[in-house]
Amino acid sequence: MIKKIGRRTLGFEETPSIIGYGSVAGKKESEGPLSQHFDKLIYDSYDGNDTYEQAESRLQNEAVSLALQKAKLGADEVDCIFAGDLLNQCISSSFGLMEFGIPYLGQYGACSTMAQGLIMSAIFVESGAANIAACVTSSHFASAERQYRFPLEYGGVRTPTAQWTVTGAGSCVLKNAKKGASVARATIGKIVDLGVTDVNNMGAAMAPAAAQTLKSYFEDTSTSPDDYDLILTGDLGEVGSKSLYSLLEQDNINIQKNHNDCGLMIFERTKQDVHAGGSGCGCAASVLCSKILGDFKNHRLENILFMATGALMSPTSCSQGANIPGIAHLVNIKNR
Amino acid sequence: MIKKIGRRTLGFEETPSIIGYGSVAGKKESEGPLSQHFDKLIYDSYDGNDTYEQAESRLQNEAVSLALQKAKLGADEVDCIFAGDLLNQCISSSFGLMEFGIPYLGQYGACSTMAQGLIMSAIFVESGAANIAACVTSSHFASAERQYRFPLEYGGVRTPTAQWTVTGAGSCVLKNAKKGASVARATIGKIVDLGVTDVNNMGAAMAPAAAQTLKSYFEDTSTSPDDYDLILTGDLGEVGSKSLYSLLEQDNINIQKNHNDCGLMIFERTKQDVHAGGSGCGCAASVLCSKILGDFKNHRLENILFMATGALMSPTSCSQGANIPGIAHLVNIKNR
Repeated sequence: MIKKIGRRTLGFEETPSIIGYGSVAGKKESEGPLSQHFDKLIYDSYDGNDTYEQAESRLQNEAVSLALQKAKLGADEVDCIFAGDLLNQCISSSFGLMEFGIPYLGQYGACSTMAQGLIMSAIFVESGAANIAACVTSSHFASAERQYRFPLEYGGVRTPTAQWTVTGAGSCVLKNAKKGASVARATIGKIVDLGVTDVNNMGAAMAPAAAQTLKSYFEDTSTSPDDYDLILTGDLGEVGSKSLYSLLEQDNINIQKNHNDCGLMIFERTKQDVHAGGSGCGCAASVLCSKILGDFKNHRLENILFMATGALMSPTSCSQGANIPGIAHLVNIKNR
Repeated sequence: MIKKIGRRTLGFEETPSIIGYGSVAGKKESEGPLSQHFDKLIYDSYDGNDTYEQAESRLQNEAVSLALQKAKLGADEVDCIFAGDLLNQCISSSFGLMEFGIPYLGQYGACSTMAQGLIMSAIFVESGAANIAACVTSSHFASAERQYRFPLEYGGVRTPTAQWTVTGAGSCVLKNAKKGASVARATIGKIVDLGVTDVNNMGAAMAPAAAQTLKSYFEDTSTSPDDYDLILTGDLGEVGSKSLYSLLEQDNINIQKNHNDCGLMIFERTKQDVHAGGSGCGCAASVLCSKILGDFKNHRLENILFMATGALMSPTSCSQGANIPGIAHLVNIKNR
């Protein structure tokens, strides 16, 4: 059973375990500090396909295949898969996962999708709705630029607060296995809008949601930042991380000592010309499913908060002058 | 606990109940046969807003407000809400639901979203992840036409197989209340692609997924069409319903006697010039949350299969020549 802890946090009695995980990343990511942690590197933006969108679908397909391989499972043994991405109508997911024939539940959490998928998988496994559940998400620099900003050929200049969409994917397979990295608690995010309208500063747009979810989690669980080896945000980047620090300061919460951000880990920010850091669903997913879960395996990490954030806008809503609301879902991952 | 029935079907021991539901529909829907069943009719496409997208957000907001009112609940009593829609990045949901402050899990199932949201809500309630869960989805003729086909001003001519996107929304609130219309079983769909590529014939694209899910459900539960008062599909329309019949015939399953389709119920097809029938996430949602759940209340219906279907394409994937894969999620709703 799942128990409510405090007002909003869920506690998993059986703590569903991540029994397999896989990550794929692109060329720019291969030049960054996490290069050797990814299961697979893809140096061609098209990955042999006709379009960037098809290439992104392949990223998800590969990540799931790798996660299943490591879990020693066939696709037909998975009861359901949760997936989503940034492309309109989540086509990377639907086209990328079709061949597996796994019952499919599409998710939309923008860049928070990896945390959302983990929460869903854990709830399905804990409740008996699935013996084995999987989740996956991806992003692709070229497909995202085309859809959200400009086609690459346009050569638009990026603002200093802009982030660089990660080409990558990550997938987890969960089961009630009582071993290794396991989902212990989760807090589902609320939609938060503090009035940010700058599409080139997503970090700032998502930070208020991150602060709200994190604060709720600490209140609900009566824990503090020091109780965790790492507080890992998805893709707040340099600007968003600083916004998060100052928002939490108002509540006397200081996470700076053990905070890191997937968008800051995946690139060497200043050398790789990614401005405020990495972003995209694939950022948090590929970092979690490489370095982070690897560190659980070798016991460098035992107890972390993984909180992916999403900006719930569209190019249409922004061009119509709407604010950019954010959301942040949090998962407490613990070694058993 | 949730129990597996056969290979893919989930059985809910506590059968979470739909304790509140609300529906909103537009002008064209007000001229159709279900007019008096909708809780609220909106005659202005903009509903007093600046854009069609904002108007669609309002539809979701209204539907949830109505469902909460009928359930005699405040938004702060709802543990989480599942929502999604057809607009890029699901902005109807994120902007429409923001003000409630309910923990939010965005779903993307295209026109299958209402069934997906119901399944999610039932799993959350049954597992203890939520005491009270809600789901909602919407579509809007004008926002969908602009995004998927042509701006209305263009005056494009529609093919005979085309469907008419419903302007409407429906929302359900679920709780373990052991009364009234309740979720007894569910089958999560797989992505099915039989090679349909005609964007003006979504019914045909979704029918194969509907046939597959329905067949699995009957196998898993050892039941037959006659065991149900109604087998209700989401928005297959005239063409898709016929495709479904002939696909099921190959397996000697005949549902024609007690089948209906929300897309055929909501409009008087020939008189209202909607070609093959209604479609859109809001079609299945507004029909379920008006006439159908009303019929459970007055015991005209006791045991039905509600199966919403979705086409998992995007304008981008179609223009790149990809097929249109479909998905169908099924919910067995029973009076307690």
